[in-house]
Amino acid sequence: MKELEERILKDGKCLSADILKVDSFLNHQIDVAFLEKIGQEFERLYHGCGVNKILTIEASGIGIACLTAQQFNVPVVFAKKSKTTNISNDVYTAQVASYTHGNVNTILVSKQYLNSGDRVLIIDDFLAKGCALEGLVSLVQSAGATVVGAGIVIEKAYQGGGDALRNRGIRVESLARIASMDVSKGITFVKD
Amino acid sequence: MKELEERILKDGKCLSADILKVDSFLNHQIDVAFLEKIGQEFERLYHGCGVNKILTIEASGIGIACLTAQQFNVPVVFAKKSKTTNISNDVYTAQVASYTHGNVNTILVSKQYLNSGDRVLIIDDFLAKGCALEGLVSLVQSAGATVVGAGIVIEKAYQGGGDALRNRGIRVESLARIASMDVSKGITFVKD
Repeated sequence: MKELEERILKDGKCLSADILKVDSFLNHQIDVAFLEKIGQEFERLYHGCGVNKILTIEASGIGIACLTAQQFNVPVVFAKKSKTTNISNDVYTAQVASYTHGNVNTILVSKQYLNSGDRVLIIDDFLAKGCALEGLVSLVQSAGATVVGAGIVIEKAYQGGGDALRNRGIRVESLARIASMDVSKGITFVKD
Repeated sequence: MKELEERILKDGKCLSADILKVDSFLNHQIDVAFLEKIGQEFERLYHGCGVNKILTIEASGIGIACLTAQQFNVPVVFAKKSKTTNISNDVYTAQVASYTHGNVNTILVSKQYLNSGDRVLIIDDFLAKGCALEGLVSLVQSAGATVVGAGIVIEKAYQGGGDALRNRGIRVESLARIASMDVSKGITFVKD
């Protein structure tokens, strides 16, 4: 998505080889009008795929998911992060490693809100090593529901998580795919 | 808001005198079309007040804030919850007690996204004792910005937090105000 790449180059800040700060429009301050366009693009990509539910994970996925859900006219479910082991048995859970925080979180969703007939589009802001996305796919599969695909705003393609999921047969559509990132050399995108 | 009260009576579950579960439409699964109506109602209430920014707190406020921001055509900023003490000095912080979890969290927002000229509408899903809302008000005031008011989906009026803020001169608009709640007797609302 050309407009997104331009926005990343204009407003994104590469703080290290791993950290791209886009908190002026995506995940701290939210440019809602811009996210509407992102939602429209996800709808264009997954049009006619029978999506009846959007799944994301708290916190920064929620805004993107809501503005995408408007385009599909379907509800959002967001998985919760829990660090407690005291989890009731009416939830699906998955383990997600966080490289940023160096720990493992349990993510969970109430069984009530994921059902075997669901056709789920997974939405998230970032995809790097793919741990969060793997966890969300696992939640959908635990419910016997169908993963239609994933809609990612920014994929750090050089970290390999997206291709690992594609190789498992999961459709992953990323609106911007970063090929390389460097504080001094800047950001380059994967060419289509 | 009549439609909201009806929805709470229909889909809400009172689990104890303190816990109202509305996760089928508000804070786990999100009925996006319904939240659009909530956003429209907040816009009607704060129409002409010069709101140029919506402030909320992760996680469950984000969806409501985004759908409200669409009505005002302004950006959202969401405060982050941090349990670390390692916080950089380019953020405003406030301490928020959590009665649910029995601890105190630091909430924070980047100084970049709250400015002295801002006229801020604070949005959140619940208001009980008012700790989160007090913290958000404090963040806005730290920036020298103006709190236009707060837009709350569900206020547990019997817990007093809303009136404490109103008594300080802060405009608080709650779309449903619960007067009493009981597992066996059910939910009653404050009469207008």
